[in-house]
Amino acid sequence: MAAYIEPRVLKGFRDFLPDAEIIRRGLIENIENTCRSFGLVPIDTPAMEYAEILLGKGGGETEKQIYRFKDNGERDVALRFDLTVPFARYIALHRAELTFPFKRYHIGKVWRGENTQRGRYREFTQCDFDIIGSDSPAADFEIILLIYSTMKNLGVDVNIHVNHRGIFNRFLTHIGQSEKSVEILRTVDKLSKTGKEETLKSLAEFTTETNAQKILEFVEAKGSFKDVLNRITELSGGSSPESQRLDSLNQYMIDATGCADPFILDPSITRGLDYYTGVVFETFLKELPDIGSVCSGGRYDNLAGLYSKENDSISGVGSSIGLDRLLTALETLEKLPAANSCSAAIACVDAEKSGLYQGLAQILRQKGFPCEVFTDPCGEKNIVKQFVLAEKKGLRYVIIAGNNPVSDKVLLRDLGARQNTELSIEELAVKLIKNR
Amino acid sequence: MAAYIEPRVLKGFRDFLPDAEIIRRGLIENIENTCRSFGLVPIDTPAMEYAEILLGKGGGETEKQIYRFKDNGERDVALRFDLTVPFARYIALHRAELTFPFKRYHIGKVWRGENTQRGRYREFTQCDFDIIGSDSPAADFEIILLIYSTMKNLGVDVNIHVNHRGIFNRFLTHIGQSEKSVEILRTVDKLSKTGKEETLKSLAEFTTETNAQKILEFVEAKGSFKDVLNRITELSGGSSPESQRLDSLNQYMIDATGCADPFILDPSITRGLDYYTGVVFETFLKELPDIGSVCSGGRYDNLAGLYSKENDSISGVGSSIGLDRLLTALETLEKLPAANSCSAAIACVDAEKSGLYQGLAQILRQKGFPCEVFTDPCGEKNIVKQFVLAEKKGLRYVIIAGNNPVSDKVLLRDLGARQNTELSIEELAVKLIKNR
Repeated sequence: MAAYIEPRVLKGFRDFLPDAEIIRRGLIENIENTCRSFGLVPIDTPAMEYAEILLGKGGGETEKQIYRFKDNGERDVALRFDLTVPFARYIALHRAELTFPFKRYHIGKVWRGENTQRGRYREFTQCDFDIIGSDSPAADFEIILLIYSTMKNLGVDVNIHVNHRGIFNRFLTHIGQSEKSVEILRTVDKLSKTGKEETLKSLAEFTTETNAQKILEFVEAKGSFKDVLNRITELSGGSSPESQRLDSLNQYMIDATGCADPFILDPSITRGLDYYTGVVFETFLKELPDIGSVCSGGRYDNLAGLYSKENDSISGVGSSIGLDRLLTALETLEKLPAANSCSAAIACVDAEKSGLYQGLAQILRQKGFPCEVFTDPCGEKNIVKQFVLAEKKGLRYVIIAGNNPVSDKVLLRDLGARQNTELSIEELAVKLIKNR
Repeated sequence: MAAYIEPRVLKGFRDFLPDAEIIRRGLIENIENTCRSFGLVPIDTPAMEYAEILLGKGGGETEKQIYRFKDNGERDVALRFDLTVPFARYIALHRAELTFPFKRYHIGKVWRGENTQRGRYREFTQCDFDIIGSDSPAADFEIILLIYSTMKNLGVDVNIHVNHRGIFNRFLTHIGQSEKSVEILRTVDKLSKTGKEETLKSLAEFTTETNAQKILEFVEAKGSFKDVLNRITELSGGSSPESQRLDSLNQYMIDATGCADPFILDPSITRGLDYYTGVVFETFLKELPDIGSVCSGGRYDNLAGLYSKENDSISGVGSSIGLDRLLTALETLEKLPAANSCSAAIACVDAEKSGLYQGLAQILRQKGFPCEVFTDPCGEKNIVKQFVLAEKKGLRYVIIAGNNPVSDKVLLRDLGARQNTELSIEELAVKLIKNR
């Protein structure tokens, strides 16, 4: 057994130490609670699927990044690189077992062999939520309100930038520019990165100078939601189902929250991905807009089409939270969810009494107060060693039990205040639970 | 886009429909809460690691079952097949950052290309908990009490079968049989499957007939904890640190819970795996013992040895819950954790009022009562369609809002009782929260 293997993790993969993992799980729990409060239900899918399913019509970037291999049965398999494709396959496979409109959330790890130099991870957690099988503006709004409420429950204020892909297309048709709309969309999508001059230059490849100017005027419309809506409605040839849907969303926001402030109509938001067809949105933290959108999404037609023989398509609306970016932001803002961890330990003065120490701890645990029991004796004179251990572990209290741990009075050491208090077990429970 | 890809999942892999996933998450949350109440902290490790690390000294069965492949950078990688090996690597890598004794739990998916004909899955969830860096009997006991409390909190009664690998080895030495101890251990481990005759025959390959009889006498010792302990102590040549440790565990159990009933000293429990060196245990449901152990573990020396250059070994004690087996058992016993899901929806009578419906739902959500909002209008005359939808979704209540949803009285439809009640919003909140 002289063998030695160097302990290391793959580049782009991470171990989570307890403090980080407690926070990560707290954040997930918080998001999950908000989803559940809206009546969304959780699902899960396999980490590994047939490569043909995950690649679908993909190709390009996806094909380069996906972890794909032959399994022991020579099947061509791959690890999921997002939660959207597996969800499309899931809907097609379980259509008959689900009730529509179907509202679900899905939190899980995904894997991409990305270039880690851009500060990206190869294993990361996504959190998706969608409403499938409703084309109603009320469904669009529910997803937007869910984003708003999720962020509110995390203690951060956001601006939600909204747009409608259809109104942009309608505008292009109106100015006689119905060709090259995908290329134009992609160019406009990069406006904030490349700047006005560069965008105009790129647009000139697909359109006339006049139309390029009009396109820029359209995507740069600024002002209140109503002002921008009026402007782009006019530019796209008057009222349309798309402009009416945007108007409804604004009204719903006012009706539901009493205020439409966090709601910005931003015609420059297009979401590069081809599968969005209706409303699209991006979410920016008011205090940290520069980190980019922490939650983006939109409405799509016929999500499961590739995996369905039926011709009746199922449209939906959904959004995805990038958990890593959100965690970084919350850390910067010092708004990480509380660790809600154990804060007390029972000292091990006499190893013989370990069962009784556990008996005392059980009393506190059953009252909902987590309590650790130290397992290695320090001897009565060296109790300070257990204080040091407790401090290292980030605990606030050490409980020094009496001669009969489950009935005698105890000494409560408050490591923060450096105080000792003598208490009965009932008093101890009351004090600990009050000061939690 | 005439392409069609058949939606399917790989054999041994599973989609989780909402009802199953709600239960699975509820079970995990319950186990996690018990771990946290003992002061254990969560960690996580990557799904994928260098193959050399995961295979370690493994080989054999592991090598055949592991999902191993070359990544895009030609690295030899594999998916974790348990949580023990990654934990050993984790301890070696982060030793300096952790405080010992280190108490952690880890819940995560693992992958094994097993033969699915045996009813096994190729992707399944494991839940491990360990105390590392303490050799104290109190640490052994804490893990056992944690198993006991976890099962208690899930509403099931268990028998925990305990043994000590060291006392068996001491016994073998005492009868002059210190060679072939590994082979003997493996043979004895299969006793319950192969029966007495077969075991005697197999043992005869490694030992004399007299010794084979003595071995069988040892492993078949029955009676109260104290009786069995006295018998095996005698058979192994008198009191020893191992027999004293077992005695401590029994006393701790009585001290902590007031009763040692669920605690069985069972010398036939050996746990086949080579890395256990001390106390070992298996957990059986009192009402369903035949499904096998739902939670097994033991004490091991030098977990991280293979990945450590230092000579000072870290011993520990831990256990692992097989979540799938436990789920099946709880289902059979009708003791699955409550779904704790949404039970009410607000009907969509008039789509224009969708924002106000959400406003009403927000009032209930903020009081901690989950509430869905239907997004597709049915018209005032077809409200029964929304009752049908709600019933399909397993909801109990439909709320029919007034003309002004956030201030007028509402009609509460109890789908179970088939009753309508008119209530103010305050009354609605009180009633729903009371009847949750």
